[in-house]
Amino acid sequence: MPSPKFKPSPEVLSGDTADIYFVRTIEILRKEKLNPVATMEVFGSRAGILCGIEEVKALLAEVLPADNREVWALAEGDGISPKEVVLRITAPYQSYGVYETAIVGMLAQTSGWATAARECVDAAGGIPLISFGVRHVHPSVAGMMDYAAVVGGCVGCSSVVGARLADVEASGTIPHALIIVVGDTVEATMLFDKHMPPEVTRVSLVDTFRDEAEESLRVAGALRERLQSVRLDTPSERGGVTVELVKEVRARLDQAGFGHVKIFVSGGVNPERIARFLESKAPVDGFGVGSYISGARPIDFTADLHEIEGKPIAKRGRIPGVTPNPRLKQVL
Amino acid sequence: MPSPKFKPSPEVLSGDTADIYFVRTIEILRKEKLNPVATMEVFGSRAGILCGIEEVKALLAEVLPADNREVWALAEGDGISPKEVVLRITAPYQSYGVYETAIVGMLAQTSGWATAARECVDAAGGIPLISFGVRHVHPSVAGMMDYAAVVGGCVGCSSVVGARLADVEASGTIPHALIIVVGDTVEATMLFDKHMPPEVTRVSLVDTFRDEAEESLRVAGALRERLQSVRLDTPSERGGVTVELVKEVRARLDQAGFGHVKIFVSGGVNPERIARFLESKAPVDGFGVGSYISGARPIDFTADLHEIEGKPIAKRGRIPGVTPNPRLKQVL
Amino acid sequence: MPSPKFKPSPEVLSGDTADIYFVRTIEILRKEKLNPVATMEVFGSRAGILCGIEEVKALLAEVLPADNREVWALAEGDGISPKEVVLRITAPYQSYGVYETAIVGMLAQTSGWATAARECVDAAGGIPLISFGVRHVHPSVAGMMDYAAVVGGCVGCSSVVGARLADVEASGTIPHALIIVVGDTVEATMLFDKHMPPEVTRVSLVDTFRDEAEESLRVAGALRERLQSVRLDTPSERGGVTVELVKEVRARLDQAGFGHVKIFVSGGVNPERIARFLESKAPVDGFGVGSYISGARPIDFTADLHEIEGKPIAKRGRIPGVTPNPRLKQVL
Amino acid sequence: MPSPKFKPSPEVLSGDTADIYFVRTIEILRKEKLNPVATMEVFGSRAGILCGIEEVKALLAEVLPADNREVWALAEGDGISPKEVVLRITAPYQSYGVYETAIVGMLAQTSGWATAARECVDAAGGIPLISFGVRHVHPSVAGMMDYAAVVGGCVGCSSVVGARLADVEASGTIPHALIIVVGDTVEATMLFDKHMPPEVTRVSLVDTFRDEAEESLRVAGALRERLQSVRLDTPSERGGVTVELVKEVRARLDQAGFGHVKIFVSGGVNPERIARFLESKAPVDGFGVGSYISGARPIDFTADLHEIEGKPIAKRGRIPGVTPNPRLKQVL
Amino acid sequence: MPSPKFKPSPEVLSGDTADIYFVRTIEILRKEKLNPVATMEVFGSRAGILCGIEEVKALLAEVLPADNREVWALAEGDGISPKEVVLRITAPYQSYGVYETAIVGMLAQTSGWATAARECVDAAGGIPLISFGVRHVHPSVAGMMDYAAVVGGCVGCSSVVGARLADVEASGTIPHALIIVVGDTVEATMLFDKHMPPEVTRVSLVDTFRDEAEESLRVAGALRERLQSVRLDTPSERGGVTVELVKEVRARLDQAGFGHVKIFVSGGVNPERIARFLESKAPVDGFGVGSYISGARPIDFTADLHEIEGKPIAKRGRIPGVTPNPRLKQVL
Amino acid sequence: MPSPKFKPSPEVLSGDTADIYFVRTIEILRKEKLNPVATMEVFGSRAGILCGIEEVKALLAEVLPADNREVWALAEGDGISPKEVVLRITAPYQSYGVYETAIVGMLAQTSGWATAARECVDAAGGIPLISFGVRHVHPSVAGMMDYAAVVGGCVGCSSVVGARLADVEASGTIPHALIIVVGDTVEATMLFDKHMPPEVTRVSLVDTFRDEAEESLRVAGALRERLQSVRLDTPSERGGVTVELVKEVRARLDQAGFGHVKIFVSGGVNPERIARFLESKAPVDGFGVGSYISGARPIDFTADLHEIEGKPIAKRGRIPGVTPNPRLKQVL
Repeated sequence: MPSPKFKPSPEVLSGDTADIYFVRTIEILRKEKLNPVATMEVFGSRAGILCGIEEVKALLAEVLPADNREVWALAEGDGISPKEVVLRITAPYQSYGVYETAIVGMLAQTSGWATAARECVDAAGGIPLISFGVRHVHPSVAGMMDYAAVVGGCVGCSSVVGARLADVEASGTIPHALIIVVGDTVEATMLFDKHMPPEVTRVSLVDTFRDEAEESLRVAGALRERLQSVRLDTPSERGGVTVELVKEVRARLDQAGFGHVKIFVSGGVNPERIARFLESKAPVDGFGVGSYISGARPIDFTADLHEIEGKPIAKRGRIPGVTPNPRLKQVL
Repeated sequence: MPSPKFKPSPEVLSGDTADIYFVRTIEILRKEKLNPVATMEVFGSRAGILCGIEEVKALLAEVLPADNREVWALAEGDGISPKEVVLRITAPYQSYGVYETAIVGMLAQTSGWATAARECVDAAGGIPLISFGVRHVHPSVAGMMDYAAVVGGCVGCSSVVGARLADVEASGTIPHALIIVVGDTVEATMLFDKHMPPEVTRVSLVDTFRDEAEESLRVAGALRERLQSVRLDTPSERGGVTVELVKEVRARLDQAGFGHVKIFVSGGVNPERIARFLESKAPVDGFGVGSYISGARPIDFTADLHEIEGKPIAKRGRIPGVTPNPRLKQVL
Repeated sequence: MPSPKFKPSPEVLSGDTADIYFVRTIEILRKEKLNPVATMEVFGSRAGILCGIEEVKALLAEVLPADNREVWALAEGDGISPKEVVLRITAPYQSYGVYETAIVGMLAQTSGWATAARECVDAAGGIPLISFGVRHVHPSVAGMMDYAAVVGGCVGCSSVVGARLADVEASGTIPHALIIVVGDTVEATMLFDKHMPPEVTRVSLVDTFRDEAEESLRVAGALRERLQSVRLDTPSERGGVTVELVKEVRARLDQAGFGHVKIFVSGGVNPERIARFLESKAPVDGFGVGSYISGARPIDFTADLHEIEGKPIAKRGRIPGVTPNPRLKQVL
Repeated sequence: MPSPKFKPSPEVLSGDTADIYFVRTIEILRKEKLNPVATMEVFGSRAGILCGIEEVKALLAEVLPADNREVWALAEGDGISPKEVVLRITAPYQSYGVYETAIVGMLAQTSGWATAARECVDAAGGIPLISFGVRHVHPSVAGMMDYAAVVGGCVGCSSVVGARLADVEASGTIPHALIIVVGDTVEATMLFDKHMPPEVTRVSLVDTFRDEAEESLRVAGALRERLQSVRLDTPSERGGVTVELVKEVRARLDQAGFGHVKIFVSGGVNPERIARFLESKAPVDGFGVGSYISGARPIDFTADLHEIEGKPIAKRGRIPGVTPNPRLKQVL
Repeated sequence: MPSPKFKPSPEVLSGDTADIYFVRTIEILRKEKLNPVATMEVFGSRAGILCGIEEVKALLAEVLPADNREVWALAEGDGISPKEVVLRITAPYQSYGVYETAIVGMLAQTSGWATAARECVDAAGGIPLISFGVRHVHPSVAGMMDYAAVVGGCVGCSSVVGARLADVEASGTIPHALIIVVGDTVEATMLFDKHMPPEVTRVSLVDTFRDEAEESLRVAGALRERLQSVRLDTPSERGGVTVELVKEVRARLDQAGFGHVKIFVSGGVNPERIARFLESKAPVDGFGVGSYISGARPIDFTADLHEIEGKPIAKRGRIPGVTPNPRLKQVL
Repeated sequence: MPSPKFKPSPEVLSGDTADIYFVRTIEILRKEKLNPVATMEVFGSRAGILCGIEEVKALLAEVLPADNREVWALAEGDGISPKEVVLRITAPYQSYGVYETAIVGMLAQTSGWATAARECVDAAGGIPLISFGVRHVHPSVAGMMDYAAVVGGCVGCSSVVGARLADVEASGTIPHALIIVVGDTVEATMLFDKHMPPEVTRVSLVDTFRDEAEESLRVAGALRERLQSVRLDTPSERGGVTVELVKEVRARLDQAGFGHVKIFVSGGVNPERIARFLESKAPVDGFGVGSYISGARPIDFTADLHEIEGKPIAKRGRIPGVTPNPRLKQVL
């Protein structure tokens, strides 16, 4: 599990990212000099993988009074059940009330992404997965998305910022753009090989101009033992990557003596398709997963007050008092 | 339509949010001194409302060479068709190739949010909608989410940062937290009324401790003509907000002489539920929409090179050359 | 199993409730002096719980000639299979032919009701059920419906006549009407407590004017140890009784020291909902079942002649001669 | 529309068929000397045909104080909408509170039966229907069931008591039992013809021992112009009555010169099957409908207090005060 | 409509292809000297296109006695309704009874094939279809299958024998086998062009070794104006022929100045896929249809005797006597 | 397993039944003097029972050069998997290229028929099946269809030619036609008994004019111990043959002392209906299966070249070189 150093942004600390009614609530309570010690509990709406709790802890460590706080939480990457309490804060309400929006927001999307990544990982049964979906999220959360994918079990990711956050090497092949600018797949691959340092793996993309099987043999013939993998990313207009295509490329590479060249598959990869590749024994050596992870629905989290000055209370629909959860650990 | 001043962040400009293979591609092209004028086209995978194009334009204005660029685009808030070209860039490839990830990322989530907002707006037939979902996204994109919701047609939003970006007033009622801290709905509403400036609308939340109909009559009796609305946000544990509940609260308020008090509904609101309220003629005066907008699936955008130095080219599955779209306007 | 004394009504004995063609058939046979000993068998169209057979036996005991009759039957409350013979009559045809309509009619609805009751009982796994559906059937069969519900396994019923027939105490709580006439739930409950003899259990209905949780605490506070149960009957306009409501009322009662007060649930109760309550471990102490039992589809019964003067015969589609069923016992 | 003289039974008047909590409520109110004028409204849960209101009116006429009552109602056989008020009673509550169970019970099953009958009538497009299902209900409600079927649009019914109540002639053919006792269809039909008065129509049942087409020709040959109809009631073991069977019997009867003999179809008849016969232009002259009507689900009716001493009131989920319905007529 | 000269085979005339019980029936009737004039009618089980009736007429012309026969029939290619009489034979029964099997057999498969062809033709809205499925039927019926496809509306077929029977030119392109034997698509196409007479159209198959778009441009470049079409037959392992592939090949051919080269599509073609190509405006110039036609389910035909010596008769389930059908024409 | 002597027909040998492009290919290769030794593999599209391979072997034995050929194949009646190689030919391409159409055509329909037959046999659990569907295929393939049904597991068939090919006795009962010509079932059965040699089994058809149960008793009474079976073939217009009909006929025959008479069922028999008869323990002694077998969809077979002069090659989508299948045996 990566352990980055998160630091709350000025925008969060200022309350600007909050729902305005929390800003107003704190203003009213201050004017009324009401600042009871309050216990808030946070739970998610569905099962999944918890992510974002490290960032939440970094925020709470900065805003809660050091001498009057108690925070219990589950850990980054933990599996969670529907409505299970994942975080419990006890502190003077004015110190954290305005951050309710940020706290549940930090958990929502990242837990959604980590959960989707875990579904793919579970389907892949040991075949490594790389997060490729950074292009489908806003650059402001690009790093957090790739970080969450790694929390969920991906072994790598494609963005620089995500790799840094998740403490892995950024992974990539050759984009279609380079091949089109250069005008030929083999030539582009050779330029890549010429200029990249040796520790960068050589993975060629073989669906740009010609049939994948033909192109695979061409790039393998050009780079020979230096070629680590070919990537199949056939567009839907050509039927996408099929089980049979993978098997045929494998067979033709082997027949030509390129048994060392691995096959990496991307394009519309999701748990169902991964499972189909595995069931059909398609010899895939790695998957790139894009929008299945990056487009995952957030897990909505809810925060509720359960005690005011040690007295159980709750809104209708909730049970007053602290909700027992022996899995929680004290973190502050 | 709001028209904010977007400014590319240092993280985007540095290439840190990019897929690493674009970083490497630019490095290779530089070493090879290859920098052809290239035309890239961008299209979305499904129909929807375009959002994020203003932010993309701000980025391109900064990175493309002023004397050798041409950019055509659709406008913020435009409806788009599947695979319709929404952006066409012609410039030296080295100047923008590394930003492909950021460009399509800026469009993906925001267009998804704006599209979901528009679906709600279309269902609501003139009843105003407020974006309430900021708590379900990461604080780093909280403002963009609320901005996109307004682009899609919401008349307001709950976050401070989103309201600023979208140039609207931030909207809010009274959170459950204030009522629980204070201990009674009427008392909390009166404190709100006491401390808030007159231009802030008085909207009480009436489901915290007692039955909604009973509580509505209590707060209306306390604030009388100063009470603008009650908000129904009944939790699912109490069956959520039903058509019949709205009708009954309306009838009881009217019978007690509080015909001026409006009814605002939130909690699980989506186009289908909005439609059901309208069909059943439930007298709703406004809706708060949360995760239907904030959890909307991004619209995946794709960028393809179609010309190199004026010569049509394309990868397999795409048609070489410029794709005609008379709706595009030159923006740079 | 209750064992009431059934007595055939004059209307049945006169043949008035019969299909007229049986009346005419007997008239023809009399004029022709045709009165063979005939064997008739009766079976149901689907599996279920047999009910009404006691009433049928009472009728046959009165109309069949004591010296020339033989009746075999299954017992009240027995499980039956589709097309299983449940009754076999051998006697001169003129003595019973006109009662074919009444015989199968006595079995049809009551077996349908008893079967539905049994489905609920099976789902409830030991939690007691009361039949509450008398308001959904015609008063002429009110007693038979409640009797059949008890045959099917309910421990009580709400109608006076049904309780008498089934030899149980009639069960009831407090109707909404009393609370509305009195104007307050607590006051109505106290009047009930004041006037009812001590052996009548005190069960308050807590959804009339206020939230169920709030009202439960109010009535418990008023009657204290004399309050046996609260009944939750939340209308669908308020979302019905949910699992979470039951849990919350239980928790709030317990927190307030009213652990002795039981929770009784009614409103749309059926096997599926009972199962959901049990699966979710909702602490329900009893269910009131209404239209699932009272609106149950009758089990259609068919009567066929299989022997005439000891000679096997049957219409097309049936097999001539006596159908073996070792479960039948001779009852006349 | 039939207009029978209904008279409340002693069992209903005594309160024995009531839910016991109404009995207790009246006892409490008497002891407390509480007897406000109360307005009760009754509505059904789903759309259908109203039946039983005549019987309800007969009950109310007997129990309400003649000088302090007002009753508004829809009429027997009226179409009703879901939740439409069909009955409104204003009178001292003690005079009618105990009859709430009986009032809604009188409406529930009969309206269910009448509604099912109407569905069949609507499907049949003018072809006459006879209610044949008395054997599937308890003899105590046999008459009410057949009466409701006629209210719903059937032109006749098979029970003596139902025919009397509905003021029609009881209809019948020849039962299988007579044919089996006699041993031959033709012989049985001739005995029927010999003994029945001329006004009874001669309808032979032709599926007992031989193929329907063969038997139809045999009985037509025997009775010739005195045979009015043949009834096809083929058991499911022989595939039931098919469209093709009806057409063939018609053709064979016509070819043999028996064009005057009509064809009457029974056995599993329901709106869907009626529609199929009509679409396929099967020459059916009449249908006998059994369990589709007799086994129809009751329409659950609900009674609510809406005013006490002229003051609007209601339980949660209902709107206080009188519900406007211009279709109601004053009946008492 | 083609009008071939059919001649009954010796195997049919000998009775060898008959069900043996017809052989035995004729033997019994001969021994009993029973040879009544009998009328047999033939109908199909479902709607479709009649085919095979010409072959049946050729058989009947040979076996029925010229002076004692009357045959009425619909015409080859006529649309037929379910159970519509398509053929009526009146002649001495011994002359044709043994051929019942052959008569309905001649109609069954061919009508099934013609019907399936018509469905494709109807979907194609004027785009020509060629029957390509001869490889999926036994060679003994290869000609009849292709003949039926032309009766159903195909403009050509691939088999020599079918083309002769249907009086069209046999159609073909270049098989994969020739390309594989020669080793290159362009070379194979040039050999075809070198050796085939000018009236044979030049259609190249472009999916064997390379990407279809690339190969299309290569063969067009080699044969230029002599190339009439390219055939796309992409295997399912490569995603089959997609709408986008057709559009792209069209665009690339046009861009390269080969606007005269048509596109012919084969592989899994059926009405649904044809419709999708048309809806998506894919520029297809012709379709090759294989197993949708050749694997079509036969239309089962039934033959029934309806008159013996002019007297109406029929088995149960059928109506005796001649069934009126004004569309029948006398053919013998 | 039958082992007929197949002989290729002149029409096949001449190439007339081939796709014309194979004829042209051979012509081109001859002119170019290209005649490499080529290896072709054949596989089916779905799982099933292989049939037709004997006929293919007879063809290859005649056309391949005896001194330069090698053929490996699975055996007639073998189970096959989807895409499993069932035949591999290595020989000079000119000697067999034109027969590709015939080879896969010989396998396609017959394997489809044999597979359908096997499904029925598997469902029937030992109860014997007779192929009755020859009337639903063209007489030219009548024999092959019945042969394939026997390969699939039927114990007999109805056609003379099929029985000869499959080396079984042709089976039959009495057709409706004989009964209608004679005018009575019993009389027709007695004529059959009078004229047929003793080794022909006496099976009467009992649904022509009267009810099946009645007729069964009549023919059993006439032929007594000489009657082997009755056949139930009730038309759909009479509801088809039901489980209950079989049970009733069995019971009535047994009650009348005809326990030795078997029951044979035909009409719409398929695996699902066979299974239902078995599950319901209907006492069926044999089934006649018609269009489920005769109308079975062909199994499409594909032939691909995999080696040219010993060098692996293949079209896109296939893997070059010989596909290993240890189940293949060398047959030439």
